[in-house]
Amino acid sequence: MYQFEELQQQFDKHFSHRHFPEDPASLYDPSEYFLGLGGKRIRPVLCLMGNELFDEINPDAFHVASAVELFHNFTLIHDDIMDKAPLRRGKPTVHALHGEATALLSGDVMLVVAYEELNKIQSRYTQKIMALFNKTAKEVCEGQQLDMDFEKIDLPGLSQYLHMISLKTSVLLAASLRMGAILGGAGEGNQQHLYEFGRTLGIAFQIQDDFLDAFGDPEKFGKQVGGDIIANKKTFLMIHALETATEPNRKALKQLMAENPSDKVTKVLEIFKACGIDEWAMELKDQYLASAFNHLDDIAVWSERKQPLTRLAHYLVQRDK
Amino acid sequence: MYQFEELQQQFDKHFSHRHFPEDPASLYDPSEYFLGLGGKRIRPVLCLMGNELFDEINPDAFHVASAVELFHNFTLIHDDIMDKAPLRRGKPTVHALHGEATALLSGDVMLVVAYEELNKIQSRYTQKIMALFNKTAKEVCEGQQLDMDFEKIDLPGLSQYLHMISLKTSVLLAASLRMGAILGGAGEGNQQHLYEFGRTLGIAFQIQDDFLDAFGDPEKFGKQVGGDIIANKKTFLMIHALETATEPNRKALKQLMAENPSDKVTKVLEIFKACGIDEWAMELKDQYLASAFNHLDDIAVWSERKQPLTRLAHYLVQRDK
Repeated sequence: MYQFEELQQQFDKHFSHRHFPEDPASLYDPSEYFLGLGGKRIRPVLCLMGNELFDEINPDAFHVASAVELFHNFTLIHDDIMDKAPLRRGKPTVHALHGEATALLSGDVMLVVAYEELNKIQSRYTQKIMALFNKTAKEVCEGQQLDMDFEKIDLPGLSQYLHMISLKTSVLLAASLRMGAILGGAGEGNQQHLYEFGRTLGIAFQIQDDFLDAFGDPEKFGKQVGGDIIANKKTFLMIHALETATEPNRKALKQLMAENPSDKVTKVLEIFKACGIDEWAMELKDQYLASAFNHLDDIAVWSERKQPLTRLAHYLVQRDK
Repeated sequence: MYQFEELQQQFDKHFSHRHFPEDPASLYDPSEYFLGLGGKRIRPVLCLMGNELFDEINPDAFHVASAVELFHNFTLIHDDIMDKAPLRRGKPTVHALHGEATALLSGDVMLVVAYEELNKIQSRYTQKIMALFNKTAKEVCEGQQLDMDFEKIDLPGLSQYLHMISLKTSVLLAASLRMGAILGGAGEGNQQHLYEFGRTLGIAFQIQDDFLDAFGDPEKFGKQVGGDIIANKKTFLMIHALETATEPNRKALKQLMAENPSDKVTKVLEIFKACGIDEWAMELKDQYLASAFNHLDDIAVWSERKQPLTRLAHYLVQRDK
């Protein structure tokens, strides 16, 4: 059994080659550049871990893992266009360097190349893997659209946010695990529990992310604390605060969001704390984490095979940077 | 054996249902709207015709035909964004109605649904069909990028234009035929000839299109004659004129393109005629058409099975509207 970091190295070795033709360079070099920006490769490694939970790693798992990573990068290139983001991982985005039209096409062709990877696996798996991949791809698009719709809603409910976050980020984590499990010969019940483990872990991770943006230690967090508050982002914290604060606090929050004073972060955090949002968020995270571990427990394989996933889950939601 | 129009009706019957989930409507209704704009469905019908050239129509051919039509519409939605086109088939484009971000996502999700259609076919065909579909999808993206690069080249050569047009439009026609042939059990040689028939026919069709835009009968053409000239588009005609005109004519053309006078169309057409561009274009079209028919001849099936394709080819390049 391999730990996350070991599989990360194995995947990087498999993935670090040119994925696109040389010509025309005006189309393919931008795609290649974007893949070279790196990242933690969490999704492809989850695919390998989902596979190894049930069996020795099937060589096809590397193709599916590559497809997942290519798909993820395709969504990032297109999301960056939609968000008009100038930077990704500290480097200029594709549209910032080459214009929106080329960025759009570079993303399109990356999605096609993801399907080329899927077409390399043994044909007895193709239909099942493709079905889950396609379903997930549609859901990720739905999540991105809901996220854009969401920004226009004045007072969104927590359940709407959960639904959106689940589609936008969790289902790909869950599907990566499950596609690995399919290649490992897992039964339907085990596949479902592993999927739910990934989905609920993804939500716990997002809660942690929203929490750290507000309450993280600036020394360890690595990016500006309070960024979401400054940008008026509708996070778990802000939505719950607007739903549960006393009327004066709710009015104060609305006013801070409308007026953007220089002490906005401090003031919003004071209200968050007065409403107990920090404790609430940690409790909610723990609930999702407990649910994730329940699903992992219910998978019918020796518990020692689960150790790398257990360790990864703890690492992902207890990180402070 | 069915004629084009009969297969068009059969395809429409198969294709005219909702292709996307109901929810979220903000994502899927724009995709559905765009499919509803119609079109001649040439590519999917070519897939059915390529199939019927070798055998009775395989039910899988309707899935592949649908995938091809969904793919084609995906490219149109994204091309319209890149070209900032307000109208498509006389109706507002997706980005004009819903903004670029939603149009981008509506296209993305349409490509995924195309792959869902491909995943419905019998698994013994999947790998071959997917390989050709993916290769073609990449080439179409390359063609679109080359088209954008092309606009920045001052004096492009005819061979560059041919390469771009072949990728941007011909390969999808060719691949549609060939995917049908694969499902019809055609051998490799027959597949290759059918592919080349489609590719060269596509080029003949494009030459015809460029010709009609300049020399078409305004009564029959259905759109503004001289539109390409007004927009300074680098067509077969303009590229060849710039390559072969006398120095005074070449200078005059360049000046007309730079200054856009009100009699630009008349003046450019005078130069085209002085250079014999109209006759040259018709000869070039006939060369490609002859090459297409040679490939059709070389396909080893009874010639009566080829009759619907022969008839369609003549119709496509002799149309005057």
